[in-house]
Amino acid sequence: MAAASFARLSSLSFSSRDGIKTPRKPKVFRPIRASSSSPPIELRFDPKKVECLLDSVKWDEKGLAVAIAQNVDTGAILMQGFANREALAATISSQKATFYSRSRSSLWTKGETSMNFINVKDIFLDCDRDSIVYLGKPDGPTCHTGAETCYYSSVADLLEEPQTKKERLASTTLYSLESTIFQRKAEIETTQNGKPSWTKKLLSNEQLLCSKILEEAGELVQTLKENEDKSRTASEMGDLLYHCLVLLGLKDVKVEEVLEILRKRFSQSGIEEKRSRLTKNHFL
Amino acid sequence: MAAASFARLSSLSFSSRDGIKTPRKPKVFRPIRASSSSPPIELRFDPKKVECLLDSVKWDEKGLAVAIAQNVDTGAILMQGFANREALAATISSQKATFYSRSRSSLWTKGETSMNFINVKDIFLDCDRDSIVYLGKPDGPTCHTGAETCYYSSVADLLEEPQTKKERLASTTLYSLESTIFQRKAEIETTQNGKPSWTKKLLSNEQLLCSKILEEAGELVQTLKENEDKSRTASEMGDLLYHCLVLLGLKDVKVEEVLEILRKRFSQSGIEEKRSRLTKNHFL
Repeated sequence: MAAASFARLSSLSFSSRDGIKTPRKPKVFRPIRASSSSPPIELRFDPKKVECLLDSVKWDEKGLAVAIAQNVDTGAILMQGFANREALAATISSQKATFYSRSRSSLWTKGETSMNFINVKDIFLDCDRDSIVYLGKPDGPTCHTGAETCYYSSVADLLEEPQTKKERLASTTLYSLESTIFQRKAEIETTQNGKPSWTKKLLSNEQLLCSKILEEAGELVQTLKENEDKSRTASEMGDLLYHCLVLLGLKDVKVEEVLEILRKRFSQSGIEEKRSRLTKNHFL
Repeated sequence: MAAASFARLSSLSFSSRDGIKTPRKPKVFRPIRASSSSPPIELRFDPKKVECLLDSVKWDEKGLAVAIAQNVDTGAILMQGFANREALAATISSQKATFYSRSRSSLWTKGETSMNFINVKDIFLDCDRDSIVYLGKPDGPTCHTGAETCYYSSVADLLEEPQTKKERLASTTLYSLESTIFQRKAEIETTQNGKPSWTKKLLSNEQLLCSKILEEAGELVQTLKENEDKSRTASEMGDLLYHCLVLLGLKDVKVEEVLEILRKRFSQSGIEEKRSRLTKNHFL
């Protein structure tokens, strides 16, 4: 391990067992501002263990490994870069996603210019130890273009309509559905023609939407009471979730906000666990 | 583009506008078996457009780009490899996540040995065009170790307890919560000591759980009826979602199953859109 990064880690302020203490600035990495979504707490792990961990990574011939930043709440892949030993060490200590810029040949903390840091909650290595996932909460859009993530060019779209330059974020099922619902809401607000879809009907009729949510909750519960097949449970949960997403859309609430609330209530994993130890959670 | 891979693409059977036709095997890539989660349909895009797209990727000095496979329903990062032109072309045509194996210097379709293919629903390029996301549905565990994904080594765990070799999949909020609920369920089944947590109480009392779900659904609906602040809506949705997750746990239903149902009902995006055009979806 490079002496510089070792010194950096050992300069930090907490032992790995101490839980939360008053944050003290590290000698080398200074958070430019407090993140909106997590306090600038630095953790000190045992330097020997950190060195051992950094040794266990299979750095390539250039001393790099792929590093992928993922939104801890939505699962969206925010960006992909490369990390060297120092970048991973810096991410562990500062909890800000840090990469090695191959073009500038230097460390680069995402957000150091834009202030859109990615606040890392946990880090995972893959089975081969040559690929890293930074699981974190972004302070704002990750892409330098202002897009939420760097992945907004769909190959299917590009092959079908390369001229239109349509942009569409890579979205998993829940967020594709959310996005469609928000789109339907916008359509209702701008145009009113043709036979409205069920989603538009729900968006236009609060009473209908509310009664559907209660009805679907009743049907979900019924699958437990009546000991129905688990496929019925999955299907009824799908119905309930869809109708709830319409309500969220109507209230301009994103699923990400709901998940952030749940994470803050329940999170017991990874680096965050250290914090929660002082505030014992008997709920779960 | 290499002549071989170009020939491969042009040998496929569908025009990009035709929607679904009877699948015909490509000349070079033969799906080893039909995937459980999607039929072995091959799509033919305009070969010129495919070549143009492949030209637009910024392949590195070895002709490679990072390729990340992500579960389209859960958002879990399944694995990361590298793709060359031929691997990306093969993925576009076969809809099976295909990589370039640097150790074997050959194309490698994930699943060709294990049968655990990743059925690609859409592909995204990043803003720099040097990183690729394969958004797909895995047929089974992705990792060669049998783990669901390759990312099961938490840096936080490794630094705290490197001896224990505890494995924990990289999970985003919803799936961390799901995992904890399943864990509590297992604990109830094996041991019964100490004061049970709220989750355990719910798991042990179906009537309580059912009444809580109906109550929380009512409170969510109330935030719309009473025009309450959107933060109330997010919080009530969090409550409802948590209690629903407990019910799913009790019925042994995974959130992934629910999302798969929703995707199949609603999916209108990417490569899948081609299919849905023939079965018009007026629901959304």
